[in-house]
Amino acid sequence: MRLATIRTATGTRAVRIDGTGPDDTAVETGEADVRALLERPDWAAHAAAAAGPSHPVGGLDYAPLVPSPEKIICVGLNYRDHVLEMGNQLPEYPTVFAKFAPALVGAHDDIVLPRVSDKVDYEAELTVVIGSPVRHATAEQAAAAIAGYTVLNDVSVRDYQNRTKQFLQGKTFEKSTPLGPWLVTPDELPDGGWEISSVLDGETMQRSTTAELVFGAVDLVVYLSEILTLNPGDVIATGTPGGVGHARKPPRYLTDGAELVTSVAGVGELRNTCRLEKP
Amino acid sequence: MRLATIRTATGTRAVRIDGTGPDDTAVETGEADVRALLERPDWAAHAAAAAGPSHPVGGLDYAPLVPSPEKIICVGLNYRDHVLEMGNQLPEYPTVFAKFAPALVGAHDDIVLPRVSDKVDYEAELTVVIGSPVRHATAEQAAAAIAGYTVLNDVSVRDYQNRTKQFLQGKTFEKSTPLGPWLVTPDELPDGGWEISSVLDGETMQRSTTAELVFGAVDLVVYLSEILTLNPGDVIATGTPGGVGHARKPPRYLTDGAELVTSVAGVGELRNTCRLEKP
Repeated sequence: MRLATIRTATGTRAVRIDGTGPDDTAVETGEADVRALLERPDWAAHAAAAAGPSHPVGGLDYAPLVPSPEKIICVGLNYRDHVLEMGNQLPEYPTVFAKFAPALVGAHDDIVLPRVSDKVDYEAELTVVIGSPVRHATAEQAAAAIAGYTVLNDVSVRDYQNRTKQFLQGKTFEKSTPLGPWLVTPDELPDGGWEISSVLDGETMQRSTTAELVFGAVDLVVYLSEILTLNPGDVIATGTPGGVGHARKPPRYLTDGAELVTSVAGVGELRNTCRLEKP
Repeated sequence: MRLATIRTATGTRAVRIDGTGPDDTAVETGEADVRALLERPDWAAHAAAAAGPSHPVGGLDYAPLVPSPEKIICVGLNYRDHVLEMGNQLPEYPTVFAKFAPALVGAHDDIVLPRVSDKVDYEAELTVVIGSPVRHATAEQAAAAIAGYTVLNDVSVRDYQNRTKQFLQGKTFEKSTPLGPWLVTPDELPDGGWEISSVLDGETMQRSTTAELVFGAVDLVVYLSEILTLNPGDVIATGTPGGVGHARKPPRYLTDGAELVTSVAGVGELRNTCRLEKP
């Protein structure tokens, strides 16, 4: 099952997407967004049975998959190939940091490049969405708490990120971070090893597979749930593989008008245009 | 004016607190909590005129001042005396990191010490609460966007904080962080230089003055609003002075049953008992 949050003339709606062709349909579930849907303990059965107003998939305007998550947790240094190629040791613990909700944009929205920086970079990430409250989870409980997977580009303002030792300020610029277009429930996905990529103006900049994750989705839910309760609609971006622009020689940053395509095979694809912030 | 969020038998309520003696009263404003109140553009006039059900101040059960902020932004390395005594240079930019809402507890609630650590520390902090949306603020706009000040103890699980270079995981343990008891509007406070302290089991562990802040409240709102919109109910904890337990020789951590009193003179006081997490 695929679930999304779409914009309509009268506000956002959670929808179930039946097929991905332009003539296929998206059916409203009755909730305003995917977080509100996932907060129903019966969300899976409710969404599967939903028969609300429908929309052709070709005309959907995607909001951020979860417009206002309680938590957006990002993981760093989590692709084995990238960690080793940088000459680093594999980490013992996940590196985690945050974003705030105003950073999010929809799957086809513009990415806003702030005027205060010319060092804005891309980071393709497989992303977990939580479907039920979970604390002190075993691996089995963690797997059961995952509603599904989606795609996020952890767009990073490198000069702000590196102004101090804490990444947050470079990671949470307004309208920088596409999330979506939908979540795919785990039953619709093959076991592990999904290709992940960033393509900038037609050129492939990142390409790897989620088989290279040091801490996988279940590991991360177990680890984070030791710290605090994960709640429905929480988003965990699992980290990015090698190939980011800041590490290239010469560096390669996002520029006004650039087209960024972020994909996880079988999960989904973000297509965003970068636009310099208006004065 | 003083505003708080209290718990009642039928849920939380935003209240205006008229006096702080036990027989003084707190008057309901009609909103469920201080964030909902501050989201009204007319919150100040509305709260000043509120005449809802009233409660004796002596019997109030304080919820976290803002139970579910969109953002909890914490600032590190921000007391001049502490930075210099540690042999560090004054920072050019604020160090900022996040907490998530489930970390919060009320002004008199227990602080939960997680079973996975015995290195839990205190950090007294003057805290700003945002009262109106603000982006790309001038100093004047920043000052106008501050609803008031409150107190937070940025309780920190030092081993988790230092597992990686990113602090988040040590800063956001469930029910670790008291926030409150109320916010005081700026018109009720003297200009600058408020004494701040942590007292642990009757022993003063931190004592300084907010005159030592490197980046003051207005500076921080200006800086952060360059990155993203600050919204009503957002919380900015401005950093802690010297004297934390982790830096003592020998170190001094929070233990089961310990009493922690966190004060900012003229603003408010938190009184919390530390309790080891139940199995």
